[in-house]
Formats: sequence, C-alpha cells, structure tokens
Amino acid sequence: MIAVPITPEAFAPFGQVIALKGKFVTINDGMCQRFGDLADIDIVDGKPGLSLFQSKLRALPYTCHLLERHPLGSQCFIPMSDAALLVIVAPDEGGHPGQPEVFVARNDVAVNIARNTWHGVLAPIEGSGLFAVIDRIGAGNNLEEHRLEQPLTITKN
Amino acid sequence: MIAVPITPEAFAPFGQVIALKGKFVTINDGMCQRFGDLADIDIVDGKPGLSLFQSKLRALPYTCHLLERHPLGSQCFIPMSDAALLVIVAPDEGGHPGQPEVFVARNDVAVNIARNTWHGVLAPIEGSGLFAVIDRIGAGNNLEEHRLEQPLTITKN
Repeated sequence: MIAVPITPEAFAPFGQVIALKGKFVTINDGMCQRFGDLADIDIVDGKPGLSLFQSKLRALPYTCHLLERHPLGSQCFIPMSDAALLVIVAPDEGGHPGQPEVFVARNDVAVNIARNTWHGVLAPIEGSGLFAVIDRIGAGNNLEEHRLEQPLTITKN
Repeated sequence: MIAVPITPEAFAPFGQVIALKGKFVTINDGMCQRFGDLADIDIVDGKPGLSLFQSKLRALPYTCHLLERHPLGSQCFIPMSDAALLVIVAPDEGGHPGQPEVFVARNDVAVNIARNTWHGVLAPIEGSGLFAVIDRIGAGNNLEEHRLEQPLTITKN
C-alpha cells in the first residue's frame, strides 16, 4: 500500500486530525490565533494524561504485522519536531480489523485516534521521533492486539 | 533580563517541564520509550481540551508589559516544530506578580504552566509558531491580567 496525505475528512471515521482549520479566536493583542477544543479526548475509568514517546524511525518499505486498539481511551499523537508519521488504521468488523487504510501525517497536524479504533503502533519515518501523547492514565487492561494474517507492506509513493 | 535555558528543577515552582527524564517503559517491541504521565493537568469546573495556537514570532529584545494567570486551569504548551519559546513566569505576592523569571524552552520539551501561575503570553522567538495547547475548556472567566509597572526587556545572551 501507499500512504496518502492525511486529511480531516478522510480520517473522520477513525478520529480527528488536529489542524489549523475552521473557527479561531484572535488572542494576545492580535499576535496569536487560537483554534479551540479540536480533539475528542474520550477516556473511560481513568484520567487523560500527557506522556512523551521517543520512537525509533522506520524505513520504507515498512511491514506492519500487528494492529492494536484501546477500549478505554482515545490516543492523541502530537509531533514535536519536523516529522512524517505513518498512521495505519482499520475499521472494526465484528471484533477484528477490516481493510486497513494508511495515511502520512506531517508536523502541521496532530492525530487523535478514537477510543477502540484499530491502529498500528507509532511509526515515524522522518524527524526526531519525539511525540507528546495524550491518552488514558489508569489501571486495568486497555490494550487489545490483533496479528494480521496478511502483513501490510507500505511503500514510497 | 537574559532568558536562561529551562530545566525541570528551575521551573518547578511554576509548573512542569515535560522532558525525556526519569522512568520510562519500553513499548512497541523495543522501538519506543514511553515516559508516562508527566504533566499535572489541573482543571477546575471544566474539561481539559486540545487546541492549536498559531503565534507570530517575536524578535529580541522583547518587551513584556503584561502578565496573566488562569485561576481555573493549568496550560501546557507543546511545540510542533523546531522552536525556541520564551517562558516568562513570576511568583504570586499577595495577588500580584513578584519578580519575574525568564526561561527559553526548545522543542525537546513541553511546558505546563500550573493553574494560577503568573506568566507572559505565548512568545516564540524561533520556529513555525505552531503549538498544541492543553488547557481548560469551559464557561466562566478564567483570565486575570496584571500590567507591569516596570516592563521587562529580554535580550539575547
């Protein structure tokens, strides 16, 4: 598969693309635009927290063997450097992932993956690999994994 | 004043520096380190939300005339590009800001300003000016401002 540039519309079934789009208010004496409340932070039985993920970079072609989902919370990835991130997601089909879709997100956006949405692990292909992550802090099992029968290979455009 | 590099220790009276420091867990088959739950997200009478701030860059020397604080919530600034950010904060002295301190934060860290801590407005001096911000979403007045009798001028090191 070839990763296509992420857009809010294409990603809508899977969560939100946090982008400079839509309404804003101007603050700080005209020096700043605030685009407010862009993510559906959806946490069950816990609290939302901020963590840092320091990931190794991946090379293309990249093979994805495993999808996972978090039944108790959304997970938002915010790049902290010039970055390109593979975003692999899939609809649910009766408790298992259906046909995956693959996007690439750059550091002009953050990506909030909705609670219980199948996705690949953090896979940056450019940048420092440093991401701020807003997700659930709490006890209990918040991870479900599914090994793909047919691994997904993602190639350059 | 000259802005000094921000450190978690020096900034502790004012909030948290969100940095790759301390305990982590290794996830994603060894490909990623997770430094968990680094910010005290402290929201009263509302919910924490994610917004984008697109700020204009400031030049040095930079003159700060105004400090503000948010009685109902912490505010966390996450740089989304290579960045340098002036962080101006001050202790409270009987309802007014005391002697300000000035730090510079780069894009290897995020900065969480504690609830009710006096601070200057978002003032990036390098980078794209794009920040993800975690702060309070809710009704009611969450802003208190204080005009400095003696403006603060921040110069290059």
